[in-house]
Amino acid sequence: MEFDRRSLLQAAGLALAAPALLRLGVVEALAQGAPAASSGPTQQAPGFYRFRLGSRMVTLLHDGFGSRPSPTQGFVRNAEPAAVEAALRAAFLPTEQMPIPYTATLLETPQGLVLFDTGTGGQLGRTAGHIPANMRAAGLSPDDIALVVLTHFHGDHITGLTDAEGSPVFAKAEVVVPRAEWDFWMDDGQMSRAPQGMKGAFENVRKRFAPYKGRIRQIESTAEVAPGIQAQPTFGHTPGHTSYLLSDGGTQVMLLGDVTNRPELNLAHPGWHLVFDMDAEKAEATRRKVFDQVATDRMRCIGYHFPFPANGYVAKEGEGYRFVPANWSSEA
Amino acid sequence: MEFDRRSLLQAAGLALAAPALLRLGVVEALAQGAPAASSGPTQQAPGFYRFRLGSRMVTLLHDGFGSRPSPTQGFVRNAEPAAVEAALRAAFLPTEQMPIPYTATLLETPQGLVLFDTGTGGQLGRTAGHIPANMRAAGLSPDDIALVVLTHFHGDHITGLTDAEGSPVFAKAEVVVPRAEWDFWMDDGQMSRAPQGMKGAFENVRKRFAPYKGRIRQIESTAEVAPGIQAQPTFGHTPGHTSYLLSDGGTQVMLLGDVTNRPELNLAHPGWHLVFDMDAEKAEATRRKVFDQVATDRMRCIGYHFPFPANGYVAKEGEGYRFVPANWSSEA
Repeated sequence: MEFDRRSLLQAAGLALAAPALLRLGVVEALAQGAPAASSGPTQQAPGFYRFRLGSRMVTLLHDGFGSRPSPTQGFVRNAEPAAVEAALRAAFLPTEQMPIPYTATLLETPQGLVLFDTGTGGQLGRTAGHIPANMRAAGLSPDDIALVVLTHFHGDHITGLTDAEGSPVFAKAEVVVPRAEWDFWMDDGQMSRAPQGMKGAFENVRKRFAPYKGRIRQIESTAEVAPGIQAQPTFGHTPGHTSYLLSDGGTQVMLLGDVTNRPELNLAHPGWHLVFDMDAEKAEATRRKVFDQVATDRMRCIGYHFPFPANGYVAKEGEGYRFVPANWSSEA
Repeated sequence: MEFDRRSLLQAAGLALAAPALLRLGVVEALAQGAPAASSGPTQQAPGFYRFRLGSRMVTLLHDGFGSRPSPTQGFVRNAEPAAVEAALRAAFLPTEQMPIPYTATLLETPQGLVLFDTGTGGQLGRTAGHIPANMRAAGLSPDDIALVVLTHFHGDHITGLTDAEGSPVFAKAEVVVPRAEWDFWMDDGQMSRAPQGMKGAFENVRKRFAPYKGRIRQIESTAEVAPGIQAQPTFGHTPGHTSYLLSDGGTQVMLLGDVTNRPELNLAHPGWHLVFDMDAEKAEATRRKVFDQVATDRMRCIGYHFPFPANGYVAKEGEGYRFVPANWSSEA
């Protein structure tokens, strides 16, 4: 598998997006742009959302969002700024600074609660890190998690494994990782050959997994993780990126991870190469295959970077696809 | 203005939808279809959502939903069942029983909190009536409401004015009503000439407004209700149906009311006549005019029956329009 230096650097840019934004003054810019204070309550509703998968409860946990400055510039590597701007406008998304939401997934199983990806742990910028609070709002606690399952090792997915001091957040959890992902990021040769701007991403991986030593399970990306949790190899975004097909009693949901970032861009334009995809060609091939599958099967999907509550459907449309959010229901 | 007997009956069917469902056993059917109990928490997140309109806070308050059984049969008066089924499938909505969500709107103003429409008051079926609880979750209380503004007098919009015993829910509020709506529903001649199945809707109007006597303000549907709240005549769905253009500091939001029901049907098919529209031809003309305006101006809209959080944009697409939900943000 080939990962060129530029891709590695750009992937590192994702892994460390929020600190980079801090350095670039984007967080300050956000603060400056904040509207005048309201005289009444201003807090947003808790960011969790429940729906049933057969007899199992799925609870989506919002972590907040990061911001991509100037998304028309360099965010899509193989499209003109005007085309990206048109896509953003068609989706009624801002063109100066694009929010990238983060949402993890909890699945209730007979073996205990399973958490897919962990968010930023409040360590990657001030607009994210809400998973622990949203978990509490949903009546749950990190101690309830029996299993953490990871799609890949980018910083916005794994940093929540530990607090800033490196102590584990999920005291009782086993951690499931795709072997191909582990092999890449834990390879000291890969780290030493990586460009300087990428070293931090490798170091972050080491830091987050260290306190879980002895309770990490490596899996093949075709494995059954547990009954009703079937791994799906979706390599490309990262070397071992893995999705999970969740099922119970004949109902299925595809947990995509980062097969696509915000659906507004890559669904309409599956051929667009986003800066975060480490092997863009492979990521595109994976994306096309998965989109075709879930669209044909009309399968509900969960996407880590989908707009909260981060679940919906992929419908074929023209040469691409469109995202259709699942109906929000007050009854889970 | 002509309202034929069939339209009146069907509008009454909306106003009293949930009791009718109860009688038809739909609530029992829903209960039978409920999935097996979960072993963990099952409660949905509180149904409120905040965003800023200039310096003013908008808080959307979800009331829950009603259910339309067999939406392919008779729900759209001038389309074949197969066409309606295709539209529902394109939107990934169920074809056997369609949820119709209800969401009211709170606007903070210098003159106090303004509530647009009031929900079902928990008196129109077990899956709705959550506005008081969601208001509390948002840190507010019915006593905080200075002004209630109504779009029209169908039961799912006005029943929340009082509790089941007829006591007012908003102890300190003035109530603003469109004069054309008031004149129609309060006309005893209209009531006496209405078909039997429609009488209940007229009686409901009288019951809900009675305890607010002396603090009801009738307005022309072209009036400025208060600074930044401009009425817009959108007659057709009911004789005096009125929308409101909310604005502050150059930012605008169109509060549509029931210019359309669920956007998945009437946006793609503006010519479809829904059973709830009392003057279907006029409702269609209004719809086309308003959709064209908000699409051209790319204006954020709030729709009472939009999927929660009930706000987004209308984009031109082919011969019709498409609904684009506004991006959900953890920061209001």
